[in-house]
Amino acid sequence: MKSIDNIRASVIGASGYSGIELVRLLSRHPNVTLGSLIANSSAGKAFADISLHHVSGGDVEIGSYSPEAVASSDVVFIALPSGEAMNITSDLVASGKRVIDLGGDFRLQDVNEYKSFYGRDHGQTELLGDAVYGLPELNRDAISQAKFVSNPGCYATSVIVPLVPLVKSGVIDGSKIVVNTLSGISGAGKKSTFEYSFTELNDSILAYRVGGKHQHIPEIKQAVKEFGGSNISMTFVPHLAPITRGIHSTITAPLAANMSTDSIATAFAQYQNEPFIALSPNVPPALRRVQHTNMIEIGWCIDETTNTLVVFSTIDNLLKGAAGQAVQNMNIMFGFDETTGL
Amino acid sequence: MKSIDNIRASVIGASGYSGIELVRLLSRHPNVTLGSLIANSSAGKAFADISLHHVSGGDVEIGSYSPEAVASSDVVFIALPSGEAMNITSDLVASGKRVIDLGGDFRLQDVNEYKSFYGRDHGQTELLGDAVYGLPELNRDAISQAKFVSNPGCYATSVIVPLVPLVKSGVIDGSKIVVNTLSGISGAGKKSTFEYSFTELNDSILAYRVGGKHQHIPEIKQAVKEFGGSNISMTFVPHLAPITRGIHSTITAPLAANMSTDSIATAFAQYQNEPFIALSPNVPPALRRVQHTNMIEIGWCIDETTNTLVVFSTIDNLLKGAAGQAVQNMNIMFGFDETTGL
Amino acid sequence: MKSIDNIRASVIGASGYSGIELVRLLSRHPNVTLGSLIANSSAGKAFADISLHHVSGGDVEIGSYSPEAVASSDVVFIALPSGEAMNITSDLVASGKRVIDLGGDFRLQDVNEYKSFYGRDHGQTELLGDAVYGLPELNRDAISQAKFVSNPGCYATSVIVPLVPLVKSGVIDGSKIVVNTLSGISGAGKKSTFEYSFTELNDSILAYRVGGKHQHIPEIKQAVKEFGGSNISMTFVPHLAPITRGIHSTITAPLAANMSTDSIATAFAQYQNEPFIALSPNVPPALRRVQHTNMIEIGWCIDETTNTLVVFSTIDNLLKGAAGQAVQNMNIMFGFDETTGL
Amino acid sequence: MKSIDNIRASVIGASGYSGIELVRLLSRHPNVTLGSLIANSSAGKAFADISLHHVSGGDVEIGSYSPEAVASSDVVFIALPSGEAMNITSDLVASGKRVIDLGGDFRLQDVNEYKSFYGRDHGQTELLGDAVYGLPELNRDAISQAKFVSNPGCYATSVIVPLVPLVKSGVIDGSKIVVNTLSGISGAGKKSTFEYSFTELNDSILAYRVGGKHQHIPEIKQAVKEFGGSNISMTFVPHLAPITRGIHSTITAPLAANMSTDSIATAFAQYQNEPFIALSPNVPPALRRVQHTNMIEIGWCIDETTNTLVVFSTIDNLLKGAAGQAVQNMNIMFGFDETTGL
Repeated sequence: MKSIDNIRASVIGASGYSGIELVRLLSRHPNVTLGSLIANSSAGKAFADISLHHVSGGDVEIGSYSPEAVASSDVVFIALPSGEAMNITSDLVASGKRVIDLGGDFRLQDVNEYKSFYGRDHGQTELLGDAVYGLPELNRDAISQAKFVSNPGCYATSVIVPLVPLVKSGVIDGSKIVVNTLSGISGAGKKSTFEYSFTELNDSILAYRVGGKHQHIPEIKQAVKEFGGSNISMTFVPHLAPITRGIHSTITAPLAANMSTDSIATAFAQYQNEPFIALSPNVPPALRRVQHTNMIEIGWCIDETTNTLVVFSTIDNLLKGAAGQAVQNMNIMFGFDETTGL
Repeated sequence: MKSIDNIRASVIGASGYSGIELVRLLSRHPNVTLGSLIANSSAGKAFADISLHHVSGGDVEIGSYSPEAVASSDVVFIALPSGEAMNITSDLVASGKRVIDLGGDFRLQDVNEYKSFYGRDHGQTELLGDAVYGLPELNRDAISQAKFVSNPGCYATSVIVPLVPLVKSGVIDGSKIVVNTLSGISGAGKKSTFEYSFTELNDSILAYRVGGKHQHIPEIKQAVKEFGGSNISMTFVPHLAPITRGIHSTITAPLAANMSTDSIATAFAQYQNEPFIALSPNVPPALRRVQHTNMIEIGWCIDETTNTLVVFSTIDNLLKGAAGQAVQNMNIMFGFDETTGL
Repeated sequence: MKSIDNIRASVIGASGYSGIELVRLLSRHPNVTLGSLIANSSAGKAFADISLHHVSGGDVEIGSYSPEAVASSDVVFIALPSGEAMNITSDLVASGKRVIDLGGDFRLQDVNEYKSFYGRDHGQTELLGDAVYGLPELNRDAISQAKFVSNPGCYATSVIVPLVPLVKSGVIDGSKIVVNTLSGISGAGKKSTFEYSFTELNDSILAYRVGGKHQHIPEIKQAVKEFGGSNISMTFVPHLAPITRGIHSTITAPLAANMSTDSIATAFAQYQNEPFIALSPNVPPALRRVQHTNMIEIGWCIDETTNTLVVFSTIDNLLKGAAGQAVQNMNIMFGFDETTGL
Repeated sequence: MKSIDNIRASVIGASGYSGIELVRLLSRHPNVTLGSLIANSSAGKAFADISLHHVSGGDVEIGSYSPEAVASSDVVFIALPSGEAMNITSDLVASGKRVIDLGGDFRLQDVNEYKSFYGRDHGQTELLGDAVYGLPELNRDAISQAKFVSNPGCYATSVIVPLVPLVKSGVIDGSKIVVNTLSGISGAGKKSTFEYSFTELNDSILAYRVGGKHQHIPEIKQAVKEFGGSNISMTFVPHLAPITRGIHSTITAPLAANMSTDSIATAFAQYQNEPFIALSPNVPPALRRVQHTNMIEIGWCIDETTNTLVVFSTIDNLLKGAAGQAVQNMNIMFGFDETTGL
């Protein structure tokens, strides 16, 4: 853990929605000086011209990537599409900077699953051992020692956080989990296709990447195994909702024998002092409440007619699901108060 | 079956969203003359003043209910909140008119379940035997002979239609069904409460009436038993989505042993000539496509990693989920082509 | 005027939003048999696959354009982007079919203005004399005799209809008109660009083509001159609103000397028997009410503090602003009741 | 100007949308300790239960108003509906605390206009002389000395800021100003009426309080006279848009003789160093960009066909239009950096 008061942070991939949100957070973080903003496709533009919202520091010019461009940084965030981060990550980690990758390249330890779900070979397998999974509420100690953090996926965050205590404590039967999840459209990144045009998505709901194909499925299973101690079987169905930002997940699983309301409350009690987790027993949380915050809200109830536990989990996909969690990880890595700037 | 070319149709409860949609459909139906439009709370107003959209015949004056007001009608639609329809229905049916009730009072044959889910005693149990469940794709013959039709619930329609063939053919394990469903806000009717204000619901998702409490659950089970031949166990989780109209249901159930893609296609083949059912194998249907139509679209895929069938079902809650299905039932009852005016 | 009961109608450009809506209307029009659906970019697909909503006849295959493909049609609708219609229109009109062009190529009689606002030379100036401007409420007689109708623009319809009576009767000072107008996103057509992606437009408002550059400006001026008898000066500011369909125009103009509430009512009285115009004195109309209808609703009030008339006008851009008005024109051209199928 | 590092701030009216936003801002302001949160209707609830979004400090209990409840505060914000603030304000100001009123009771210096637009007599006319109009970009010096600040209205802020430099410099003809403005629904406050229900407002646009009746009209005129030096005549038309938060104003006015693009740029140059004003010549600003920020963005262009200046102005109605501007005023009053916590 470094004991410095002010660090220099650069962002590679500053023009995507997660990258923009990251710059917004970093620009008002009291311990951070904004370093280079990198986005090859927007190089030469002012940051203000590509931002969804106004941000102080909007007149910073976006640059192209080179090792020199980020050389003086204490921490480098990579907010590139999966696949693009792979090569530059290796050099950045080797250079001794702290690195936080918001993409999917270093989330899966199993390279066969990476190939199967991401559709390409993993080109930097030697780095996988260095990648610390950046879910603070479950992996805080490792993150505090990490040089390289792989930030979790948005859906994955919204499902892993509620599932782990339930699996670890044996409250649910982990072999019959069903997850229905809805994402705001910004979760897909900046899009220039007909399918993502306003008229096609407004007033509609659409499932996609169905049939067990979504790349966050192996990530969820890996994390539940690592932090919850058991393998699970899960049907995961993602949908698009006509909302700009936010994820709402509804998780159902049979209650294990002899489990009760108290067992659930006990399981979730591990989160009772977490600054970014709100527990909402018996009240389904409105997605709206977590938007523009780094919170994850977890609600639940028992369907007694089927002895099934129903869990609701909500996050802002760009904050707790991406940039906010990345800054939370940075705070832990550098010894700042974990909530600083969030 | 009557063999008349033109019938007189009245609507009791013409000022609610379903009632308004019903008037819109009836006003352009070639075999229908609009009779009385009844809504005690709006009596004296022109229909145009309470309608969500413009409609021909908008200058018709809304009246208060009395038996005389609907005496000359061939068919009377009741679009009142559940509980209010109960008493007038009895007299209307006794008077020999055809009656179609869009509310929930006569959907459940078990009065104990009625009391449990609707929160009141059933005051007209002797009429329950006369009520024909108005789901044309499953009960067309009975509807054609019926004097009194109980129109299905919106969620119920969206779930029963896909579930029945799957249960009947043994394609799925009916003991572990999970239904996650999203409704447009008009499904709640006209609302004057803070919880339904624009700012509270826009950009959000919110589950409600969770824990097995929704009144469409026993309706679905009853219909699947009647038309599919088996009891099922189902966890049903309804949510509100920031959409004016439409229901999107995602149904998951374990595939039964030895069942395949072909088995599913064979099961759904019973609907292949239905004018209001669109089958969409392997492609999740966008909710948008059924809005402002009387269609139900059913898509599906197999999640092979969990051997689970995932079924998607979309309807317009005000049409196939209410007024459109009511007109479809009327067409069948009076021997008109089933698609007339829809 | 032909005296036939059933005509064959083809649509060139059936895959755009206006073309789709046109096919939906024609497919349920009692006097129309659907002919060829032409869209070169979607040739070979089923119509259902490109439609925003379900429609009966959805299994019709889309074809490529050739003169033979539409040879047996009584009427051909052209729903192509401006510029593309120009060449084929000439042959179609020459072949003796009735032609209704929903694009902008034949709306402006002044080819210099065409070049200035549409950015290209007009290649078929000899056809301009044959083009009848298809605004039924102002030009019904000419339409009934027309072989070739140029369907008005969506913004133009929403502004011309209220402005003409006000200018003709001298109620307003036509030299200081300001029009602020909001369009649903479908007005831009099918889009595959970042600027029209959901995330960019949701929850936002954005003015565009400002500074007097919108191509509907000369169209409005030309029509007000032709039907209202005077030249006007107008500042026209179009905006995008996060709505799928609909146009809301707010028109302000100084009241002329000695003009009063009665003068305005008298001016608009010319529309009192129009089936597709709703007059709403003193009550601003909600855009919602005209969606999915062919209506134009006109509301107004006087701002006495500035002696200014404020007029509101709402239409569905795909219906009264495009396909609905085109069918209305077809009805007039073939002697059907003007409201048939609308 | 006090020279203290940390002040205690209380909020009266903490349960409305502006009050909630204020608490959110104050709770993370580095120089502020949150004092009492007052809302009689929600007394006894935790703040988290009434907040639109999560906020740190959400477990603070809301109390009822009494002078003692706010006695230890350095600054008291009043976020009550107009009319309710009037009486308590007098005592609070007399007690020597700094007071910032977000309501309308002390914005108009002319009590006749107050009665005319707010519909009641003004009961505290002796306090009007003490009320400093809290628009920092135009009145910073007075605010820095003020004990009592009247925070501007949301529409008023969005119109006054762009109009003042244009009027002061003589760029426009101030006698023919037209303002069309769109507000997100949160601008109406928390609502429990049918007219503000989701289904009524979604996908729609609706003008309201038309005919020169909106209470921000005299406020705009008063401020333009005070800071711009001239009387203006303005037609002001407010509309509701299906957006949660934000105001988009489009202002048109004839260019004065001999005025050019350069004259406009010169006029707006007075704002070039303002931290919360973004100038966007020739590019209409998207409303989205200012949401969740304290910025006002001003864009403009000339319509040369009518020699009219068209100005666009966007703000977040809950921030620059209410709570954000209130905190900006607090920063000025207590000598903090003006952007702190914003």
